[in-house]
Amino acid sequence: MPSEFELIDRYFRRPTRHTELGVGDDGAIIRPTPGMELVVSTDMLVAGTHFLPNVEAEDLGWKALAVNVSDMAAMGAQPRWALLAAALPAATESWIEKFTRGFFACADAYGIDVIGGDTTRGPRNLCVTIFGEVPQGTALRRSGARPRDEIWVSGKPGRAALGLAHLQGRAQLAEPQLSDCLAALHRPQPRVALGLALRGLASAAIDVSDGLLADLGHILEASGVGANLQIAVPPESAFEREALLAGGDDYELVFTAPAARHGEVAALASTLELALTCIGTIAAGVAGHIDLCDPDGHPIAIEHRGYDHFG
Amino acid sequence: MPSEFELIDRYFRRPTRHTELGVGDDGAIIRPTPGMELVVSTDMLVAGTHFLPNVEAEDLGWKALAVNVSDMAAMGAQPRWALLAAALPAATESWIEKFTRGFFACADAYGIDVIGGDTTRGPRNLCVTIFGEVPQGTALRRSGARPRDEIWVSGKPGRAALGLAHLQGRAQLAEPQLSDCLAALHRPQPRVALGLALRGLASAAIDVSDGLLADLGHILEASGVGANLQIAVPPESAFEREALLAGGDDYELVFTAPAARHGEVAALASTLELALTCIGTIAAGVAGHIDLCDPDGHPIAIEHRGYDHFG
Repeated sequence: MPSEFELIDRYFRRPTRHTELGVGDDGAIIRPTPGMELVVSTDMLVAGTHFLPNVEAEDLGWKALAVNVSDMAAMGAQPRWALLAAALPAATESWIEKFTRGFFACADAYGIDVIGGDTTRGPRNLCVTIFGEVPQGTALRRSGARPRDEIWVSGKPGRAALGLAHLQGRAQLAEPQLSDCLAALHRPQPRVALGLALRGLASAAIDVSDGLLADLGHILEASGVGANLQIAVPPESAFEREALLAGGDDYELVFTAPAARHGEVAALASTLELALTCIGTIAAGVAGHIDLCDPDGHPIAIEHRGYDHFG
Repeated sequence: MPSEFELIDRYFRRPTRHTELGVGDDGAIIRPTPGMELVVSTDMLVAGTHFLPNVEAEDLGWKALAVNVSDMAAMGAQPRWALLAAALPAATESWIEKFTRGFFACADAYGIDVIGGDTTRGPRNLCVTIFGEVPQGTALRRSGARPRDEIWVSGKPGRAALGLAHLQGRAQLAEPQLSDCLAALHRPQPRVALGLALRGLASAAIDVSDGLLADLGHILEASGVGANLQIAVPPESAFEREALLAGGDDYELVFTAPAARHGEVAALASTLELALTCIGTIAAGVAGHIDLCDPDGHPIAIEHRGYDHFG
């Protein structure tokens, strides 16, 4: 096994494009763009909780960064820099090679410089910190939703949860749905372009990591409002309904925007070639409360909203 | 057990002093000071590798942040913001209460806003990311050491390693040394004031986390130089010698400065009430090579330089 420092040199040090000093000192040095605010976020991925122990290392590398990129998308920030801290069991070099290949593929896809990190021995744990930039005062927050705003969601949430259920033997998917759902699970595509386009348009935004209803709930609580949702849920399968409403790990965006700007949001769907579905409206009333019905107005009971790591 | 979100509200969310948006959204928002560069670093602490499983939670909280503060000190940066990601086994609330008490005590001691993080279930793992500021171009790097520069070290390295050896039954310390060494191990005091004072004075700097010789070695390699050291090692104890030369976890600073500025460095010792010892000079020659002798000029063999997580 090479030393910690040989591993860093071989797999974690790559040329940077917009960084003063990258991997290799006590800290990295970046020069924020004048007039921009910095948005920062960190996410920790643990084997067994966030990924299956037998996941492909390259997929895991992609996803470890992608879930952080998604936080930038949800804030309307342009992702710029990332740090990677990794605890690894007696790691084989081939695992590290594949993992970093996926990680840097995601970094390249989103224009991110990987500027530092930490490697240590321990139960597998990946902690990524990401930095993005946003013009002062324009970040998308959870707290801006107002009564009568429309509620939108991008893409098709629930696919990652279905893919996971298939892998765990709790569901049986057929092609082409299987490949689609596994791609959503293993190679999430954070909605950065959407997040940037929503600056000055959306009143609030969040990404769907814990489940559609759970994450919408965070917007509602932060904004002190409720919601009336009309969602077309698959009638034939309680399981698909659960995945749609409470499945995590999709990294789509849920956001709110004034009803008067419905056309602008709808136009983004074709510009970005991304489904954007209006699923309801913000209501005055109890903060966090959600009334859910199908498109015909029949109430749907909510069993649970999503994932809670300590619940 | 409260939910993840209740835990965050109760223990991880505190008022901030210089932050646009702290804990509670997809990302935190900070506004870097114009004209300053941002120095960023991340460190991951794993039970069994970086701390004993039975360590006091409050000490661990202090140390998890302090080791990151030390990276800022080594760069000459003023620490300003931190993120905390934590994987916890079925954590008791009392553990979290104590841990966060120590963590925020360190944050308060160094004027740091804790602006976000992540909590998840898993084998205990703490990953802290820290951000500091430094005027453009003034950060202390590892790569600036030049032949004939003097090599200095702050404080008394080796105390943390001795404290750890005592706890592990590999050494038997008596008071008052025991308390002194346990304090060094559990409550390291990062040398931020020293790091700030060394801007424009030191040619290179690093903090002693892996061991005095190992970390000096990083300066030598980054600078393409060697070193001649004269160190007064305790003659009576091979163990204390090993702790001094190769013991990690002290978070003192090792730095180099031009010999012409010896007096300025020496004067800092009294200003800061901190021992600063000149332990040798930088030599041209093989990058990373260290010649070590005692103050009488007798060569001392180097058995190993410090800690390598994968070696």
